Amino acid sequence: MGNKTPLWAAIARELKEDLAEGRYAPGDKLPTEAALADRFGVNRHTVRHALAGLVADGVVRTRRGSGAFVAARPTDYPIGRRVRFTENLRRAGRLPGREGLGLEVRAATGGEATVLHIATGDRVLVSHGLSTADGQPLGLSESLYPLDRLPGLQDALAKGQGVTQALQSAGVADYTRASTRITAVVASATQAVRLQVQEGAPLLKTTALNVDPDGVPVEYGRTWWAGDRLTLTLED
Amino acid sequence: MGNKTPLWAAIARELKEDLAEGRYAPGDKLPTEAALADRFGVNRHTVRHALAGLVADGVVRTRRGSGAFVAARPTDYPIGRRVRFTENLRRAGRLPGREGLGLEVRAATGGEATVLHIATGDRVLVSHGLSTADGQPLGLSESLYPLDRLPGLQDALAKGQGVTQALQSAGVADYTRASTRITAVVASATQAVRLQVQEGAPLLKTTALNVDPDGVPVEYGRTWWAGDRLTLTLED
Repeated sequence: MGNKTPLWAAIARELKEDLAEGRYAPGDKLPTEAALADRFGVNRHTVRHALAGLVADGVVRTRRGSGAFVAARPTDYPIGRRVRFTENLRRAGRLPGREGLGLEVRAATGGEATVLHIATGDRVLVSHGLSTADGQPLGLSESLYPLDRLPGLQDALAKGQGVTQALQSAGVADYTRASTRITAVVASATQAVRLQVQEGAPLLKTTALNVDPDGVPVEYGRTWWAGDRLTLTLED
Repeated sequence: MGNKTPLWAAIARELKEDLAEGRYAPGDKLPTEAALADRFGVNRHTVRHALAGLVADGVVRTRRGSGAFVAARPTDYPIGRRVRFTENLRRAGRLPGREGLGLEVRAATGGEATVLHIATGDRVLVSHGLSTADGQPLGLSESLYPLDRLPGLQDALAKGQGVTQALQSAGVADYTRASTRITAVVASATQAVRLQVQEGAPLLKTTALNVDPDGVPVEYGRTWWAGDRLTLTLED
């Protein structure tokens, strides 16, 4: 079973999970070093090392003489029938941003065509982008659009319009989420550079299909989210 | 940016993602080595190495002279208002199983008490378990129950009853999912041993609250799922 993970790193990870579960809010004071040493059955030196790791990751701040405080916690991101990046981020108190990483037009593969209800070889517009929260990379995405069904979309996206607005320009007044698939993967070297995480860091991968009010597919997208920075939430 | 991931491993990962997205079904033939070499811009030796990795992981089988076939793909696991492990697995065509890893009774921490609507220090029953699909480890879980509200639950779980049945024994006729939180983490050494994955492998972590028909919390659970073996799905 090996001991590849140092003890302090295992403790830092567990504390991060506490933050991700919402046990502490930004500004909350963490338990004292002595209390944490007690909880994890380690000495205070190890606890200090774990806290230093969290400070380096930007999730905890320490104030001399007054302890450690939660600086940030992962962004809560609701998924359901209506998923809008900008709205979701604003509700979480974050400043949403998007960096376009290129548009390309190519022929749909068999699988893509099936999902988008078009014919194999029909043109799809592929839009690559990086979503940010408060300027920090949050998700890398690749969206596929059935181009021949959406005249004007390419120009709107090229002008830098957001997805909702660009789809409106192309005649899609509204759209909803027909399905979402969620899995966990680790960051490849290229993804790590874009997302500013370590290679091998955990990513949440979502695959989603958006449809217009008649149920016709308008977007099929995949997003790789930095696992440390985002929590998908489903409320009932 | 480094080259820590060998090319064949990057290709194996991409093919695994294709499977996770449902592009191929079990029994489907994968494209030929020549076609894959073309797609990834590598030589056939590298493709063969990637396929060998998938065979070792049990997701692909090769038949001499007839190519590579999909052996298994991740289990689709729907999440929504009603989440039942046994039902979900049967629908996915898998044989559900569960191995109990111990029950303990302890005092609720402040955070746990808040979630479960009990007082700090009230007794909680903690149940640890390993969920399996066709005998293969799928998820490691830790469920917390408000013990004083659920007389008889401990005995029922100790006898090996499933959660739904054990809650019925304790007077909870039905329960629904009030909220689910989903994030991605990497497997610790201990989790890796239990789940039979590599340390550092991607895990989906779900945190969920189940409530009775009056909205009273009956279970607060966390599960770490093998990311390669499970896809959470949300259909609308």
